[in-house]
Order: sequence, then structure tokens, then C-alpha cells
Amino acid sequence: MRTGVRRRMGVEERRQQLIGVALDLFSRRSPEEVSIDEIATAAGISRPLVYHYFPGKISLYEAALKRASEDLADRFVEPREGPLGARLLRVMRRFFDFVDEHGPGFSALMRGGPSFGSSRTNALIDGVRQAAYVQILSHLDIKDPPARLELLIRSWISLAESTALIWLDGREIPRRELETQLVHDFAALMAVSAASDEHMAAILRQVIADEPEDGPFGDLMGRLVTLAQA
Amino acid sequence: MRTGVRRRMGVEERRQQLIGVALDLFSRRSPEEVSIDEIATAAGISRPLVYHYFPGKISLYEAALKRASEDLADRFVEPREGPLGARLLRVMRRFFDFVDEHGPGFSALMRGGPSFGSSRTNALIDGVRQAAYVQILSHLDIKDPPARLELLIRSWISLAESTALIWLDGREIPRRELETQLVHDFAALMAVSAASDEHMAAILRQVIADEPEDGPFGDLMGRLVTLAQA
Repeated sequence: MRTGVRRRMGVEERRQQLIGVALDLFSRRSPEEVSIDEIATAAGISRPLVYHYFPGKISLYEAALKRASEDLADRFVEPREGPLGARLLRVMRRFFDFVDEHGPGFSALMRGGPSFGSSRTNALIDGVRQAAYVQILSHLDIKDPPARLELLIRSWISLAESTALIWLDGREIPRRELETQLVHDFAALMAVSAASDEHMAAILRQVIADEPEDGPFGDLMGRLVTLAQA
Repeated sequence: MRTGVRRRMGVEERRQQLIGVALDLFSRRSPEEVSIDEIATAAGISRPLVYHYFPGKISLYEAALKRASEDLADRFVEPREGPLGARLLRVMRRFFDFVDEHGPGFSALMRGGPSFGSSRTNALIDGVRQAAYVQILSHLDIKDPPARLELLIRSWISLAESTALIWLDGREIPRRELETQLVHDFAALMAVSAASDEHMAAILRQVIADEPEDGPFGDLMGRLVTLAQA
């Protein structure tokens, strides 16, 4: 059977299949723990045939990481409709789906990455961060962001990354709660910036103008008022 | 002169001098750009003599990074006196002093690090993060932190790192402003967590109980009230 399948697959199709198999394995364990033999077995082909398509584990890892990066960046895409808080919450749900699916590999990568190929893997990670940044700016409908807004968005992205990493390390807090919390965090950090800067205050007013009381931003305000009165 | 100095220096003294010279160079540029020749010249000794003390650039880089890590961890130490907001602000001032002094090297390290020695450099970075975490817990006077508090502190530490990195990239926002902002961010993220969790709400109340109106936490509250009324 396997020989039959192998014969029918074209070069690109086989490459894509190998990338899929490798991504699955690299998602479940840190890259150092995954061997070419294992990838070959999982793909149902011989070790030499893997090398026919990829010069080595590094290039296969990078190809798998590239696919995962594109997948994650795709999940950031959200229709520009409805309140911003709800949009961000939907993206956070998909972000945690991704983190959940690729847990151990995501942890290993973000906690310093594999001992090989660091500059290319770093470039892929930075590409995903940039995609997230561009999406958020686009939803805020701001073309030429002031330095404080860029700082807010980029540092919040790193907060989202570290929140996901800490969640993976034991999963003690329900992920649904953290998805909402990150949306709240975004609003709270924006409020801090707006409290000291007029331009950021104007942007904050624009963001919350269309927020319903039962959306995540409205929900946070209600909870904070309750907290302050307690 | 140099020969005279060289003769008088003991092995450990010479090692420490080389580490200091290397740290200075590694602080100003990314590690790939610093050569052993340059370190030898800056230390006033021959290249072979550098190799007599350190087997290569990696071990010298790691020794320099170790010294920098210890230096940074020392700056987190703050007397347990007075309001918490003011204590955290003083630590943030010293953190930005450090970042300022080691700018390019700090950026290169935190943006993926050198292409060599990643597991040991990662361990040093994690050691500094852990030192920061332990200090904050100790100031909060909490021995057995709930998962939400651990998440808050650790994710805020990563927010502080990324804020410093973004600041270094152009220095568009005055660092004094960011030092205060990070203290505000801590309070805001704690408020978000407290808004959805009773235990965190109790910890927040304890934290702000002794805060004066003119401290950084009180200042934030005043500004947020003004913002909400505008």
C-alpha cells in the first residue's frame, strides 16, 4: 500500500505531506527530541527518501515552522465588523486554539527555540508578531500610529505570548478566562497610556465609543466599578 | 607599562578584568560583531593570552552575560519600606539604567540571542526573570501565590522586557515616562485580574491599602478618573 501511495505522490505533494507530518511531531515535543527516523516512519517512507526532499532536520523544522506561522497569522484575520472588544476576543479564542494544538512545540520554540537555525526561526516569529501588529492597527483604523500606540500594541502582543506560555505550563487557569483577560488587559494598558497622553486618550475614546455594555470592554468597566465600590 | 601590569595580575584578577572588558564590548554591539582580537586589544594583552584564560568567545560571552545578569538581579533588590508603588518605581529606574548602559547587547540578546550557546544564555536570562519574580512576591509579602498572581507577575515581567526593547529601538518615548508607565501597568493588570477573581481582589486591596495619593498608584487612579470624566 505505502509503495503505491508513494508512487502516486508528486514532489510538491510529498513535500507538503512531510511538512504536515513533521509539524505534527514538532508540535508535540521539542525539536531536539524529534528524529528524522521518526518523521520517516510517521510519513510511511524511508529515511533516505526524507533526505531526498529535505537536506536535514533543520530545513524540515523550518518548513514546518513556516507553515505553523502562516496558519497562526491567518487566525489573526477577523472581519472588520462589530465592536472591537468582541473582535479581539474572537482572535484570542483562535490564538489559544493554536497554542493548544501546538503546545509543547510552541513552548520549546518561544522559550529560546531549538539550538539550530536561530536567525531564520526568529525571523518567522517576528513575522507573526508583525502580522498581529498590522491586524490590530487595521482594526483600530489607524495608518500612522504614534510611538505610544505602537508600544502599546507590540508590548501587549508579548504579554499575550507570555500569558499563553504560562498557561501551557500546567494549564492551571481555564483558557477561556485568559482569552477574556487578554482583551481586558489590552483595554487596561490602553487606559494607562491614555491617562498620561492626550493622543492616546483620543484613540481610547474612539475605541470604546461603539462598545456595548455587555461586550468584553464594557464588562471590564462594570467589574472595575464593582471592585472599587467593594 | 602593560607588561608590568600583566605581571602583577593574578589569574582570577585577569579573568575578572577580561570579563569586564568583554562585557563593555558586548554591551555596545551584538556578540557576533565582537572579536577576540578586539577584546585582547581593549584589555591590553595578546590574543593567545585571552585564550589562556577563556577557551573561546562563547565562554567569554557567557561569563560577561553572567556578570551582567548578577548586576541586573542586584538592582531588583529594594528595601521593604514605604509604599509598594514607589518601591517598584525605584526598581524600574534602575532597570532602565541597566538597559541604557547595555543597550545594543541587551537588544541582541533578548531578540533571539547569539547564534552560539543558547541553552546556557537562556538559563541566565531565566535566572534574572526568576530573581525579579521572587523579589516582587517578597514585597507583596506572599509566600504561596495563587496561579493568577504568578501569571500576573511573570507576564508583567515580560511586558517590562518588551517595553524596554521597544524603547531601545529609537528611544522615541522618554524613559522616565516608561518607568512610571510600567508601574501603572502593573496596577492595571492587577485590577483586571482582581475584577474577575476574589482572591486577586483581596491581594489588590492589600497592595493599595498603604498607597499615598501622590504615589504612582494614586497618581494613576487620579488620572483615570479625570480621563473618565473628560
